[in-house]
Parts: sequence; C-alpha cells; structure tokens
Amino acid sequence: MNLSDWRRRIDEIDKKLVELLNARSQCALEIGKLKQAAKIPLYQPDRENEVLANAETNNSGPLTDAAIRRLFERIIDEARAAERDAMHSSSGTEKNEK
Amino acid sequence: MNLSDWRRRIDEIDKKLVELLNARSQCALEIGKLKQAAKIPLYQPDRENEVLANAETNNSGPLTDAAIRRLFERIIDEARAAERDAMHSSSGTEKNEK
Repeated sequence: MNLSDWRRRIDEIDKKLVELLNARSQCALEIGKLKQAAKIPLYQPDRENEVLANAETNNSGPLTDAAIRRLFERIIDEARAAERDAMHSSSGTEKNEK
Repeated sequence: MNLSDWRRRIDEIDKKLVELLNARSQCALEIGKLKQAAKIPLYQPDRENEVLANAETNNSGPLTDAAIRRLFERIIDEARAAERDAMHSSSGTEKNEK
C-alpha cells in the first residue's frame, strides 16, 4: 500500500470515529437529562475513572495507555460541554457554540 | 432506558473507539515508515487541514464542529507522537512511554 492508500484508510476510519463520537455524545445527553430530572450532579468522578480504566483495559496498542487516557479525557470533556450546552438551551439561554 | 443502560451503551461505543483509534494509529505508523523511507517530513500541514476539514464535513452533531475539531487535533497529535516514538525506537533509542 502506498501513502494515498493509507490515507484513504485513515479517512474511512475518521468517518466512523465522527459517527461514534456523536453517538457517544447523544448517549451522554440522554444521561444528562436523566441526571437533571433526578437532580443528581453532572460530574461523577467515579464514573469518569471507570471510563478511563475501561479504555486502558481495552487498549492493545500501538497507542500507549497514556495516549488513550489523554484522548478519553478530551472525549469526556467534550461530552460534558455538550451536556452543559443542552441544559442551558433547554432552560432558555443561548447555546454558546455553533 | 435508564442510566445504567445508557452507560452500557457508552461502554460499547468506547470499546469500538479504542479499536479505531489504534487502527488509525497503525495506519499513521505505516505512513511514517513510508515518509521516512522517502525522506519526506512527518509534519504535513496541508494533510492535517484536510483531515480536520473532512471531520467537520462528516459531522452531523450533536457535537459542534468546534468540538469535533478539538478532538481530531488531539487524535492527530497522538498519532504524530506515536510516529515519533516508532522512529526513535527503530533508530535504537528507548520508547519514552509505557
């Protein structure tokens, strides 16, 4: 395989990554609604640690566990930002992005 | 669906994300080898911009384009770190992580 072949493969993977990241974000939004209804806090450090631990457990490389952890920290951050946005717009204020 | 159901769904998505991120990293490593053999630079800003633009084009939400861009910037960073690691270990030095 040449450079263009590998890049095409990356482009296919990236399409799936965008889909999965959005599917994940949709789940997080549903969880946010349930938490809001039950008046429990959005931020649950135990669950976050569990998510990070699972990601490392499932990691077989070539990414290092540290790299996987950094990526999932960012994924969790963005999910939380989307939850906050959704809460604010459902309570009548503007979304602060897009 | 209750909180545990949504979390289970997130755990399934995360498993696939870890797989895809590693598959992507493997492609980037192959590209790194081809670049090294052809003596072309690892960092190619045009290709990075293309990857970011593709990710935004494929984005149908709920994540904002800005969130998708931040996530892919991190994904690209980690891919480059893995390429650098691989180059250094193939030239005889220690991997600096894991």
